[in-house]
Amino acid sequence: MLKLYDLAAADADRRFSPYCWRIKMALAHKGLDAETIPWRFTDKAAIGFSGQGRVPVLVDGDRWVNDSWAIADYLESAYPDRPSLFGSPTGKALSLFHTRWADATLQGSMLRLVVLDIWKHIDAKDKAYFRQSREERLGMTLEEAVADRDERVLAFRDGLLPLRLTLKAQPFLSGAAPLYADYAVFGGFQWCRSISDFKLLLPDDPIYAWRQRMLDLFSGLGERARGYPV
Amino acid sequence: MLKLYDLAAADADRRFSPYCWRIKMALAHKGLDAETIPWRFTDKAAIGFSGQGRVPVLVDGDRWVNDSWAIADYLESAYPDRPSLFGSPTGKALSLFHTRWADATLQGSMLRLVVLDIWKHIDAKDKAYFRQSREERLGMTLEEAVADRDERVLAFRDGLLPLRLTLKAQPFLSGAAPLYADYAVFGGFQWCRSISDFKLLLPDDPIYAWRQRMLDLFSGLGERARGYPV
Repeated sequence: MLKLYDLAAADADRRFSPYCWRIKMALAHKGLDAETIPWRFTDKAAIGFSGQGRVPVLVDGDRWVNDSWAIADYLESAYPDRPSLFGSPTGKALSLFHTRWADATLQGSMLRLVVLDIWKHIDAKDKAYFRQSREERLGMTLEEAVADRDERVLAFRDGLLPLRLTLKAQPFLSGAAPLYADYAVFGGFQWCRSISDFKLLLPDDPIYAWRQRMLDLFSGLGERARGYPV
Repeated sequence: MLKLYDLAAADADRRFSPYCWRIKMALAHKGLDAETIPWRFTDKAAIGFSGQGRVPVLVDGDRWVNDSWAIADYLESAYPDRPSLFGSPTGKALSLFHTRWADATLQGSMLRLVVLDIWKHIDAKDKAYFRQSREERLGMTLEEAVADRDERVLAFRDGLLPLRLTLKAQPFLSGAAPLYADYAVFGGFQWCRSISDFKLLLPDDPIYAWRQRMLDLFSGLGERARGYPV
């Protein structure tokens, strides 16, 4: 069986990595079972075999792959008879932009809204590492980062306009049915939901309805996961 | 022959609409000749037949289509034997996000950098309309909008990170060869180039090299067009 090292909070069943969520959705899309192994930021030794220190790491027999995009690419090549994650080579190339937008723009803005909530939920042994590395990246304390989030969320929502306009026109980023581009963007929303009760979206937003459709996929894989109501 | 109403500056051959550029690239992609008709913002009567007041408007025999996405969709359906603009229905759905990102995020940021240059180049009869409508939209004078552009361009470049990361990995947004997603994003760069000598990109940026590849397509359709060196 496939194994996925999956970032966990203090509660082992609270899985919050946006990148790991992409892969859990991709595995479900391909109908592949995987054992998810709870992993904390400081468990570097457990994934030392991968030559780096971040999850997701997928282990498939005697092979391993790290980095969510590389894992999606691997799953597509290794399991070509399963439902495609991209539809075609062109679909794969096009999906890279959604993925990089989620990495850089979406999740970057989300971090400023929920970073203190992440810190509150992670395992005690991860707290010092997380606070130090994120405060360095943000150039301020976690408390300062989220202090103005009630105003900041308004600019966050404005920044989602390309996503909103797309999802106003079609049910999924990939069209009538979800593909990897949807999972890449959904990962960020599931990250926030798993560790924060902060309301990112207003109920009349087309993105809100899309997120619910995503939460409902695969018998509610996202919805059943430990987290907060959205 | 197809006819395209195409936004022109004071110089009739200076064509600067980002939306019209998308369609000129799409027409060339499909190998379709079109007569481009120079049109100014205040020439509402000339396109009154389309029931609205903006270009591009494509006329194909006794049919007309307005709105760049709708025109691309029309060309794809009406000329299915010509090279596809999307690769597949999934490719089309995925390309809508690039298109809406270009509309809302990319071109929105560009406007603050070049809006005064646009005003300087447009036809005398368009100047009052343009200044009033854009100052209302921006909530400030055109001069105020661009006053800090030497600093603002740094944030603009930071905001292009999803595009940069994508184009670092592959030659075009659509993969090995350009499709409509590339034309949609290129339109914004060509808009700026046609009316401004302001340097949007640094030469070592993967986006810079992509823009040059786009300028070179179709025997230099973009490069030969009236504008400034990039």
